[in-house]
Amino acid sequence: MHINLTDQPIDVAAVLASVQDDGAGAVNTFIGTVRNQSTGRRVVRLDYEAYDAMALKQMQRVAEQAQEKWPMLRQVAVTHRKGRLDIGDVAVVVAVSTPHRADSFAACQYIIDTIKQVVPIWKKEEYEDGSVWVAAHP
Amino acid sequence: MHINLTDQPIDVAAVLASVQDDGAGAVNTFIGTVRNQSTGRRVVRLDYEAYDAMALKQMQRVAEQAQEKWPMLRQVAVTHRKGRLDIGDVAVVVAVSTPHRADSFAACQYIIDTIKQVVPIWKKEEYEDGSVWVAAHP
Repeated sequence: MHINLTDQPIDVAAVLASVQDDGAGAVNTFIGTVRNQSTGRRVVRLDYEAYDAMALKQMQRVAEQAQEKWPMLRQVAVTHRKGRLDIGDVAVVVAVSTPHRADSFAACQYIIDTIKQVVPIWKKEEYEDGSVWVAAHP
Repeated sequence: MHINLTDQPIDVAAVLASVQDDGAGAVNTFIGTVRNQSTGRRVVRLDYEAYDAMALKQMQRVAEQAQEKWPMLRQVAVTHRKGRLDIGDVAVVVAVSTPHRADSFAACQYIIDTIKQVVPIWKKEEYEDGSVWVAAHP
């Protein structure tokens, strides 16, 4: 299991490499990126703040829950960015490898959906005309 | 839409880059790799053969169908490898970008599931003790 929180740009290729497994025929990856708009307002930048120790612990727990639900899971990687991000930057990557593809989709979706519910990371959206703190994971 | 069939190693990072879109907050990617076993036999190598023109046309059609079903799809990329592959090699990559994440999972899964049903690509599995042609996409 590869769980990371970083204030540096996420190296997606490295995350993918970390789930490579000769027993896996399927890798599903979710990449969350910064969109140029949110609820109709033009976003120019984002700022993520995390309660680091708790965020890492919760991400780890979610990955463990996924391995209980999908015992065939081979590898799991979750990397979340924090700090200041520009439009198009990668905010989070989840990657899982499994023998067969349906499990890879289901497990990856479970992990990102659950992370967005339980991991303490907050997001400040900066617009052309101001900024506001919002739930990191609506 | 980026549809490719290649006898060279697939550059996954390039496929991911091709679906980057400032209006997308979500990228889902499916990577099919060569497993070290199949129906209980140890696989040492695979050989994919395609009816190129028809395979490309069908992949294109599947991508178009996805864009009809998910009009919010921003970018779609499908690259399929052909020729001789070793264990761990990437055989196929599907990547889609969408504003929101649930659509990215659904559209990506639809595309790979449908490709595996309709695209004319055949697979020869080589074992330690022989080989056999099988449906490329069981």
